[in-house]
Amino acid sequence: MKSYRIGVIKGDGIGPEIVDEALKVLDAVSVTQGFNLKYDEMLLGGAAIDETGVPLPDETIQGVKKCDAVLFGAIGGPKWDNLERHLRPETGLLGLRKEMGTFANLRPAMVYDELVNASSLKPEVIQGVDIMVVRELTGGIYFGQPRELQEEKAYNTMVYTKEEVRRIAIVAFDIAMKRNKRICSVDKANVLEVSQFWREIVEEVAKDYPEVELSHMYVDNAAMQLIRDPKQFDVILTGNIFGDILSDAASMLSGSIGLLPSASTGKGVGLFEPIHGSAPDIAGQGIANPLATISSASMMLRYALGETEAAERIDEAIKKALAEGYRTGDIGDYDAKEIVSCAEMGSIIADYA
Amino acid sequence: MKSYRIGVIKGDGIGPEIVDEALKVLDAVSVTQGFNLKYDEMLLGGAAIDETGVPLPDETIQGVKKCDAVLFGAIGGPKWDNLERHLRPETGLLGLRKEMGTFANLRPAMVYDELVNASSLKPEVIQGVDIMVVRELTGGIYFGQPRELQEEKAYNTMVYTKEEVRRIAIVAFDIAMKRNKRICSVDKANVLEVSQFWREIVEEVAKDYPEVELSHMYVDNAAMQLIRDPKQFDVILTGNIFGDILSDAASMLSGSIGLLPSASTGKGVGLFEPIHGSAPDIAGQGIANPLATISSASMMLRYALGETEAAERIDEAIKKALAEGYRTGDIGDYDAKEIVSCAEMGSIIADYA
Ligand SMILES: CC(C)[C@H](C(=O)O)[C@@H](O)C(=O)O
Ligand SMILES: CC(C)[C@H](C(=O)O)[C@@H](O)C(=O)O
Repeated sequence: MKSYRIGVIKGDGIGPEIVDEALKVLDAVSVTQGFNLKYDEMLLGGAAIDETGVPLPDETIQGVKKCDAVLFGAIGGPKWDNLERHLRPETGLLGLRKEMGTFANLRPAMVYDELVNASSLKPEVIQGVDIMVVRELTGGIYFGQPRELQEEKAYNTMVYTKEEVRRIAIVAFDIAMKRNKRICSVDKANVLEVSQFWREIVEEVAKDYPEVELSHMYVDNAAMQLIRDPKQFDVILTGNIFGDILSDAASMLSGSIGLLPSASTGKGVGLFEPIHGSAPDIAGQGIANPLATISSASMMLRYALGETEAAERIDEAIKKALAEGYRTGDIGDYDAKEIVSCAEMGSIIADYA
Repeated sequence: MKSYRIGVIKGDGIGPEIVDEALKVLDAVSVTQGFNLKYDEMLLGGAAIDETGVPLPDETIQGVKKCDAVLFGAIGGPKWDNLERHLRPETGLLGLRKEMGTFANLRPAMVYDELVNASSLKPEVIQGVDIMVVRELTGGIYFGQPRELQEEKAYNTMVYTKEEVRRIAIVAFDIAMKRNKRICSVDKANVLEVSQFWREIVEEVAKDYPEVELSHMYVDNAAMQLIRDPKQFDVILTGNIFGDILSDAASMLSGSIGLLPSASTGKGVGLFEPIHGSAPDIAGQGIANPLATISSASMMLRYALGETEAAERIDEAIKKALAEGYRTGDIGDYDAKEIVSCAEMGSIIADYA
């Protein structure tokens, strides 16, 4: 029997609840599909600070390297908000992304037909939306040096090297080839040198993909167009902070940020996580939406383990649960039959998968 | 009779068309309200490049200083896109903002009741939205040094000094005092030092405004919340690039970016301009929406000249025209009686004002 080693990082806030449901679903499909999953639990973020004093312990850095893939919940919360920056939960996550070399963050924004009424946008605007945001994840202003908080001023550096832009552009073009062959690269080239540079290199990479239609858009306009007419987009390629902002905006098309998964891939082991945060305000109440994490587990099966059939079973199970009217509270009661808890939703998907 | 000197910068693309309509309306209210307006036309952006070789001629820098306020259309277009950065139209606009010291960019995002069906968002989500985005305009990554485009990498610097944050925060708090006394300051303090600094100084300024309720939000979440539930916001206070992105997103609540004005104020003369761009694709066709520029003229009367009554006449005239069913093409035909041209819309507002 095939066997995979999965790093499991539950994290903070709702992290443990939602990851537990994803594991429930993974267990179910591994049985039906006949493969074995071994889980290695690791610490990150607030949970790691509480246990070890640092947000990214060495055991985690070493541990993930031994895995075939890592499934991650969410980190952060008010408890750790006033720590110095290098001790904050978020710094642990950024460090992990960097250590793992996961420079490509894939964030699909799609709308389940079953939830077409659940968004704040009109159904006719969002029905059929299927966007892939390809966000650069280990460069840009998140990691740029120099950076400093001084007495009278503070600064960060938004920097990209040719190689950093090239490799993320290649990821985006490869993905576009498997989709509708359209890429919109988002930058602020009318103001920023780093964006002009980005644009030039993306143009260069485009030469190797004559079938892909490349366009460029300023980030302010992109934020607007995502709301005005999201169906115009196929693949959106952008840098770290613009991708952070735009993928969160895009998530609203789906009706709830609690629905959307993400995959971070790059040099080695991939990291799979919901795009939402740790939602400390609802942690421990059992009402969180596990679907984004369950979808992330599906992306993990598909992209990291090559278990496409298992991934499809999960995706179908989610659609079936939504079609039958099961909803968690965040989705609201549009076309809902029953508002279920986090654990109930996990069990329903595990049953159907 | 009171007399004011108004700098008029028509700019590129649809700039001349929309500014002409605003002048038509200004002429009308100046007659009924009994004051005199003298217009000084000046060059900026592409138009300036074509005439003088540079996007911000000295005559413009000197000229605006002699005015009581400046009304501006829009700049830029494909014709000038491949020039070096220091020669681009946008560089002229950024230079003008810097020269004029207009560090505070006020961008109201409100929804006309008459157009509540015109947005891509559901009417119940947007009805009654009334947000003021206060965007820092002469600092941050737009102007930060060092900045460079090299062979193998490129970078920009996002920097704020204490004084820069203080003064824009004060503007926001003063505005909040005249509104619903709630400020949401938007940053990325979980990742950026410059945002941590921003947050600290905003907190400091807040101490002088005990009546104002201050909250903080990460920029990714803010982009999402603007779409999910925009009514939660009163004043949004943020830096230059985050404000650029968020105010464009917020403009979509209104149904069209062609509706919203902006005021840039600071040390001296204020600059009043629509938040949209020069829309080269529809320039010269007479179909542009002049309402954002006409609203900007109204903001100019109100904030720069203290001609509140005249401003109110214009605001009422716009509402009346919309209530009667007049629309430009960008708004779409929701509840429309007649799709009118740019010049027709200008004449209707001038008539009603
Ligand atoms: C928690 C935070 C550091 C993180 C980011 O900004 O990358 C989050 O917003 C995300 O998008 O995964
Ligand atoms: C034209 C461009 C430089 C400008 C900006 O980014 O400030 C525009 O988008 C705006 O918001 O006024």
